[in-house]
Amino acid sequence: MVTPAPDLPFDQAIADRFMRGNDRPEGIFGFLGIRLTGYEPGVLRAEMPVTANHLTMIGNMHGGCLAAYCDHLLGMVLYPHMAPGYWAATTEFKLNYMAPVSAGVCHAAATIVSLTKRTAVVHIEVHNEADGNRRLACMAQGTCLIVEPRK
Amino acid sequence: MVTPAPDLPFDQAIADRFMRGNDRPEGIFGFLGIRLTGYEPGVLRAEMPVTANHLTMIGNMHGGCLAAYCDHLLGMVLYPHMAPGYWAATTEFKLNYMAPVSAGVCHAAATIVSLTKRTAVVHIEVHNEADGNRRLACMAQGTCLIVEPRK
Amino acid sequence: MVTPAPDLPFDQAIADRFMRGNDRPEGIFGFLGIRLTGYEPGVLRAEMPVTANHLTMIGNMHGGCLAAYCDHLLGMVLYPHMAPGYWAATTEFKLNYMAPVSAGVCHAAATIVSLTKRTAVVHIEVHNEADGNRRLACMAQGTCLIVEPRK
Amino acid sequence: MVTPAPDLPFDQAIADRFMRGNDRPEGIFGFLGIRLTGYEPGVLRAEMPVTANHLTMIGNMHGGCLAAYCDHLLGMVLYPHMAPGYWAATTEFKLNYMAPVSAGVCHAAATIVSLTKRTAVVHIEVHNEADGNRRLACMAQGTCLIVEPRK
Repeated sequence: MVTPAPDLPFDQAIADRFMRGNDRPEGIFGFLGIRLTGYEPGVLRAEMPVTANHLTMIGNMHGGCLAAYCDHLLGMVLYPHMAPGYWAATTEFKLNYMAPVSAGVCHAAATIVSLTKRTAVVHIEVHNEADGNRRLACMAQGTCLIVEPRK
Repeated sequence: MVTPAPDLPFDQAIADRFMRGNDRPEGIFGFLGIRLTGYEPGVLRAEMPVTANHLTMIGNMHGGCLAAYCDHLLGMVLYPHMAPGYWAATTEFKLNYMAPVSAGVCHAAATIVSLTKRTAVVHIEVHNEADGNRRLACMAQGTCLIVEPRK
Repeated sequence: MVTPAPDLPFDQAIADRFMRGNDRPEGIFGFLGIRLTGYEPGVLRAEMPVTANHLTMIGNMHGGCLAAYCDHLLGMVLYPHMAPGYWAATTEFKLNYMAPVSAGVCHAAATIVSLTKRTAVVHIEVHNEADGNRRLACMAQGTCLIVEPRK
Repeated sequence: MVTPAPDLPFDQAIADRFMRGNDRPEGIFGFLGIRLTGYEPGVLRAEMPVTANHLTMIGNMHGGCLAAYCDHLLGMVLYPHMAPGYWAATTEFKLNYMAPVSAGVCHAAATIVSLTKRTAVVHIEVHNEADGNRRLACMAQGTCLIVEPRK
């Protein structure tokens, strides 16, 4: 895991509100079964179980599930670190797939490595834990735009 | 759209087989509602309708749906261009989101810009067509490894 | 080559000013030997000759020369398309190397595929022309932030 | 910094040989003034001083210098971790620029996060140290192909 940017502002109440969102699994968030497991300054942790409808016909998790998982966390990690009303617009990201995933749970850590008034850079690592083994499944790096509230 | 690599081998029968896969919408492919609409040498075209469960609570398509869509096409475009038994393992990709999507259809073109014995580079453009307007929603560039059949 | 974003504003006088910069080859611009060869709305063209000090000891152009070439054009293409005083800050880019380069000239086209008030997305293709052959050497996709003039 | 992949093979003699290359500053390696400062299993460290000919006319280091620096380390880190005769062909990378650099030294750490028989994924962080401050200047993630020796 990378080191989060230093001295990030952090609002625990906003983090808690997002954690409660686990109870409303809607859309692709629900299809993937993502569960946010913890916020700390600069870092969001989550898990996604590997289920039958995530697999391709050769029995591996569809890369699109991992990509969507990363995209979801990329914006999400920022909210408790921005002033209320601000919005994180994911601009782009890049990811590498390192190992096939076929069972168990995908644990992710999304880390803010840079946060300015205008942009944020986030690094994400996803480890697959299955049958007592843990290995790096994918790694992503992306950019969000910090958008001011409309007046 | 970019120009496909010249002189690509192309097997129409394999392309046709993948097109018939439209009738078996399973897993994330089914959740997204992707429909392959045409193969030609170096290019795969597809469409994905924007449905209610693709949207976030602010009414825009979740970026993860577009990312998963790109991931899906990235490997898929290669099959009719490889010898039977070969496998395209998506190694990495990068995408930019250009415009929010909230209705209509997302038309994609995945183009092979380079294909060697070992790797392929694919460029993807996704245009959203809604209410008579068409605009670039996202653009991706990724790499696949060409994996030989196991002996 | 990709299609430039439609209806881009374009200031020929600014483009001309940048073209005159070819006569002041300084820093890495001079080391690389980049020469801007033409601006049109949404597109900047340039060339870079392959010289001995661009090569690694195995006789291929150092990837860093191509990366620096792409980085240079990524911001440069935007200036004639922004209001005076605005600044294009390259935020990130990704590139794929497709074929080794060892002689001849590297022709680049940098194309603006999206331009909003806040960001731009640029696609770059570099073709190597040597011994009568022309092939795709590298392809890049990157993001710039559009920065307002300081008041 | 990220954690290197576990159990990487490592040949100190090859690492030492590359370190001695510091004495032959040729091509872009010389232009940039890169000096490898240490190899350990999975990690290569280097430094690059900020010199006048790295700067653009507004006084910041040209992004192309940082991009070329990352490209250089991306392949270089792999050699002591591969069997003799094998070759690391950089396939692609992505980088984010986080803060302008205008003086001091750019310290880099290139870390192998995944290494298989066929590919490697490398993560790079560049910190600028100037006037007693140290901050993240850029971060990259890239892929190399591991190429077997020709028979």
